[in-house]
Amino acid sequence: MSLAELRALAIRVLRAAGLAGDHADAVAETIVAGERDGCASHGAYRLLVAVNSIRKGIVSPDPTPRIEEPAPALIRVRGDFGFAQLAFALGRPRLVTKARRYGIAAMALNDVVHFAALWPEVEALAEDGLVVLALTPSHAWVAPAGGTRPVFGTNPIAFGWPRPGREPFVFDFATSAVARGEIELHRRAGKSVPESWGFDSQGRPTSDAEAVLNGAMRTFGGHKGSALAAMVELMAGPLIGDLTSRQSLEADQARGGSPIGGELIIAIDPAGFLGGSVAGALIEAEAMFEAIEVQGARLPSSRRYAARARSLKEGVVIPAALHADIEKLLEAE
Amino acid sequence: MSLAELRALAIRVLRAAGLAGDHADAVAETIVAGERDGCASHGAYRLLVAVNSIRKGIVSPDPTPRIEEPAPALIRVRGDFGFAQLAFALGRPRLVTKARRYGIAAMALNDVVHFAALWPEVEALAEDGLVVLALTPSHAWVAPAGGTRPVFGTNPIAFGWPRPGREPFVFDFATSAVARGEIELHRRAGKSVPESWGFDSQGRPTSDAEAVLNGAMRTFGGHKGSALAAMVELMAGPLIGDLTSRQSLEADQARGGSPIGGELIIAIDPAGFLGGSVAGALIEAEAMFEAIEVQGARLPSSRRYAARARSLKEGVVIPAALHADIEKLLEAE
Repeated sequence: MSLAELRALAIRVLRAAGLAGDHADAVAETIVAGERDGCASHGAYRLLVAVNSIRKGIVSPDPTPRIEEPAPALIRVRGDFGFAQLAFALGRPRLVTKARRYGIAAMALNDVVHFAALWPEVEALAEDGLVVLALTPSHAWVAPAGGTRPVFGTNPIAFGWPRPGREPFVFDFATSAVARGEIELHRRAGKSVPESWGFDSQGRPTSDAEAVLNGAMRTFGGHKGSALAAMVELMAGPLIGDLTSRQSLEADQARGGSPIGGELIIAIDPAGFLGGSVAGALIEAEAMFEAIEVQGARLPSSRRYAARARSLKEGVVIPAALHADIEKLLEAE
Repeated sequence: MSLAELRALAIRVLRAAGLAGDHADAVAETIVAGERDGCASHGAYRLLVAVNSIRKGIVSPDPTPRIEEPAPALIRVRGDFGFAQLAFALGRPRLVTKARRYGIAAMALNDVVHFAALWPEVEALAEDGLVVLALTPSHAWVAPAGGTRPVFGTNPIAFGWPRPGREPFVFDFATSAVARGEIELHRRAGKSVPESWGFDSQGRPTSDAEAVLNGAMRTFGGHKGSALAAMVELMAGPLIGDLTSRQSLEADQARGGSPIGGELIIAIDPAGFLGGSVAGALIEAEAMFEAIEVQGARLPSSRRYAARARSLKEGVVIPAALHADIEKLLEAE
């Protein structure tokens, strides 16, 4: 399937599910980007996830996001319970303008539903020449270090750094030990999971995937990952007046929908501190990237970009079973 | 020893080593704070480290830091190669003012020498009611995930969150697997280290502490910790026009001094996004802290604060050998 065909399919499915035109377009772009970059779990598969949240009434099909400026260097987009992509698309130009004017700026997305990764947003802003940090809570599935009961979401941290003449340096990872989808894949395959991934609902270490999903996942990196998960929870929850992961799960009312809540994006214009020396500083950064790659280590985004180059030439392969499931979404409407 | 006695001793030693009055005072406060909070490796012991950097000419004894405002929401303090504490003390009130005015602000400390932890700075700004993130590179001692040769410093990340009526929520950790001082302690004690800590200079896993110190340490948390180390390196290096950890080590010219370079501090005023709802949001945060502590897990700063409460009542105990080494610093001048 070419990327254009996938985009058309995604838009058709999302509109059939009831999404308004601009809403469907914004969400489809994220799905195409995931599939294009070889992230199967964030590609076409996510159409099923998105439509699930639409049908269960978690997400509003035709929201009216509104922009506010609570302080000179802050932007807030109230998402009206649409998917985060629509609110982001609306706020992005203003965040760029503010970062350039003030040197640093932050944007809160409030009242949005998250079903996707953060890297498309971080990459877009890095393409605008900004240094970007994005954070969001999710549903309370992850125990703090030293505990066994869920408090945090999978709470991803994403970062973007502009690189002249090529794709930005981007990373985006969950502060949980693994992605939740990884545990779900193990459950479906009937495979056990390492005991380092989580606890059962009695707080005991377990290698049973189902038990971890009903119990608690662990953070990555012990107490350090746990501290970062708390930071994400605080900065993209209470700090922007939005839900914590515990509140998001509660608001879900066991419907099994995507997390509801907020996202915080901090953007810094390199020209702020550097003035006319931006080019030289970016060269220093390139020297660091080279020192990493020259020893055979990979930059975080390199696999995605390699997959992208392939997909742009050759298109993408959607497994027949998944394609059938997606087509079924159209029939059911 | 009471904290007042330790402060007086620290100031005497730092002045004897040549530091100007305000410079000695700022550095002494950090040393007292470390000892008070039970961080032996960041307490009185650091007087030896600080004096070492003074004697080797790494740090300027009587610098004249200058404040600049490169953009409306940015502050820069050029530290004139004094210790970071002096530059921070000078810039702190302006950073607070800017964060309150613009909602978010950032401060770069440039041309400073770092011998201490970041938490005293983060805690001070959280005491001012701000949410704070601080980053700094160090010397290139740490290999990226997938590599075996040093690129990053121990690159700490520190975070502070204000708590009404009590000490802030604060964490401060190295993105290396362990603190470098930990490996040095093992070397001195003739103990082996876990192979997960680092590589020898040939890039082979080793349990020899000395070999790791001459080779490369690992990051914490695999590729995620490595990504964060890169972020710290970029944001508190090239982004603020200052040295990377590789450049800092080069500038040291094998003198064995403390890292030279920059620090980035991002501060957000909760009232920016929250307006009159700050109190309610801080209560939501407290509910999250309680959900962590109720299951027996510790908050990152809890041990330090417990030690602080003891030290304020009972004073601190400086080992006789360390005390003798400190007294020797006075004689040598």
